[in-house]
Amino acid sequence: MEQFYPLLSARLKALILELNGKKIAVVGHARPDGDCIGSQVGLTRVLRALGLDAVCINADPVPRRLQFLIRETEFIRAEDVLPIASDYTAIFVDCADSERCGKRLQGAFPRPIAMFDHHISNTGFAVHDFIDVGSAATAEMLAGMFVDLGYPIDADAAQALYTGILTDTGQFMFPSTTRRTFLLAAELLVKGAHPSEAGFQLYERETMGKWRLVEAFLKSLKLECAGRLCVGILPRSVFVDTGSTSEDTEGLVDYARSIEGVDVGALIEEREDGTLKASLRAKDSAYRLDRIAAMFGGGGHACAAGLSLQTDTKEFYGKLVTEISKQIEIVNGEGST
Amino acid sequence: MEQFYPLLSARLKALILELNGKKIAVVGHARPDGDCIGSQVGLTRVLRALGLDAVCINADPVPRRLQFLIRETEFIRAEDVLPIASDYTAIFVDCADSERCGKRLQGAFPRPIAMFDHHISNTGFAVHDFIDVGSAATAEMLAGMFVDLGYPIDADAAQALYTGILTDTGQFMFPSTTRRTFLLAAELLVKGAHPSEAGFQLYERETMGKWRLVEAFLKSLKLECAGRLCVGILPRSVFVDTGSTSEDTEGLVDYARSIEGVDVGALIEEREDGTLKASLRAKDSAYRLDRIAAMFGGGGHACAAGLSLQTDTKEFYGKLVTEISKQIEIVNGEGST
Repeated sequence: MEQFYPLLSARLKALILELNGKKIAVVGHARPDGDCIGSQVGLTRVLRALGLDAVCINADPVPRRLQFLIRETEFIRAEDVLPIASDYTAIFVDCADSERCGKRLQGAFPRPIAMFDHHISNTGFAVHDFIDVGSAATAEMLAGMFVDLGYPIDADAAQALYTGILTDTGQFMFPSTTRRTFLLAAELLVKGAHPSEAGFQLYERETMGKWRLVEAFLKSLKLECAGRLCVGILPRSVFVDTGSTSEDTEGLVDYARSIEGVDVGALIEEREDGTLKASLRAKDSAYRLDRIAAMFGGGGHACAAGLSLQTDTKEFYGKLVTEISKQIEIVNGEGST
Repeated sequence: MEQFYPLLSARLKALILELNGKKIAVVGHARPDGDCIGSQVGLTRVLRALGLDAVCINADPVPRRLQFLIRETEFIRAEDVLPIASDYTAIFVDCADSERCGKRLQGAFPRPIAMFDHHISNTGFAVHDFIDVGSAATAEMLAGMFVDLGYPIDADAAQALYTGILTDTGQFMFPSTTRRTFLLAAELLVKGAHPSEAGFQLYERETMGKWRLVEAFLKSLKLECAGRLCVGILPRSVFVDTGSTSEDTEGLVDYARSIEGVDVGALIEEREDGTLKASLRAKDSAYRLDRIAAMFGGGGHACAAGLSLQTDTKEFYGKLVTEISKQIEIVNGEGST
């Protein structure tokens, strides 16, 4: 049978031997997403099925929408593990750098024994780095190696890894989706993954507050830069007014980006503490949103970046439009760097 | 190699011989969706690659969002083909019954030589019926048979079949999604299907009018039946007011259904001609929306049904709430049929 990750799988096999007898902490990143929780649950369950002692550790709680993945898998919050951190051998998943797990966990586990990640910016920080930037999700890497090695994937692990792939590929629609992604989805279904249950849990358990928030965001949408930038603003009181939570802002910026002719979508959120948070999404990496965000002290990827700063909304709005206009001109070939 | 549809593929091989020398009309259904257009393009291109003469014929135009699938494939409208219908040998795709292609095409092709479909209600109407209700999409059946038989699938055919599968599985999230669905998606990628391009064309070319329509629909959402029914209303003037079209209503009812605790979502559209159109969607087939719709002269599936009637909105709203309440009681086991 074809091997999905021949080199990484051979290294994972060696790592498993090295882990024998250790208490393992599978550490995810702060503000965990589907690929993070899915990878944590998938890896932890497979390690346990192999006879190893493993638990999941996070700085932040598992979001409501992802709690269906937990089942009997043990999740421990950072504060409870810090006093006994030295008992654990850490494996980081889906963290582009060691700081992504949160400052306290980074301090507790300065050099994890292993790390599994697919982010392009990851330069390695563990004793054994497992990085594959051609993978659509960390969960895809893990699933591929587990299948390669014939490791036992139970139905809960399969569902978790499947959900990691589903969410990190934008439902199999991001450019990172490959033949391997689909072949592994097929394998995970055989092991017990349940696509419609995942779809239900992720996208059919919305609240009326969430839709009121979407309504408010859509109402605020404005086109700038001759229709190539679309910006929406969430005012300070919006969560109270709509009965929504800050977790509900996830995916909102996609409404702005997904309009025909719009190249960049932006969401500006006025926070209770007086700061502004902005999310930027582009249809093409040429817009280098990582650079735009960096101008305001933020960062991220070329197509998806964010920032947080102390400023006035109107002032920031103007500056953002100016900077994105400049970038659009550069992309048009009408300007110069 | 494993065969996806061993029996159907053998029959398709025999059909291809029978089609030799004929002018073939690949007929889709009225108000075509992704699976319809995808299956038509996929089948037509493969037939042509096999040296046969084939064109696509539809009662209605290809929706804006699906036009990227056409490429060099020839589409002919019903009115242009009716005078010369006798020149053609018809193959129907994705039509649960022969009326689905529209009255005029049904009259022109009363007994097609073949039909490919996956709908459970299909009882057969062609000389050679190819029905598989276990398939998630007609495009899945076609792709599977083409792969089984080693037929030439070019990049445009692959993209069309892939898009049929993507749309008819709700982005791989409907319960109909199986291991085979993912394996065929992987095969189609190898043949040139482009998931992110399909995603862009289908879901990233929205209009501001569409979002204004969504905003209006969300604003109108009301919970009934102790939160188990959610209804939204589009008033007569909404398309003019929001700058949207009736094509933009597709998927709108899902916002109503996807709220936690809601079992049935409903959209009521007041039409220019004074009629009402309603779309009903359930999370579970137990709600038998086909029966509810039938009470108002409509029909459909257990989880997705629709109707159109001449009545007053308020009166219909009340009756709909009453009927759905009754069905909820039946599902609860508190009532009886």
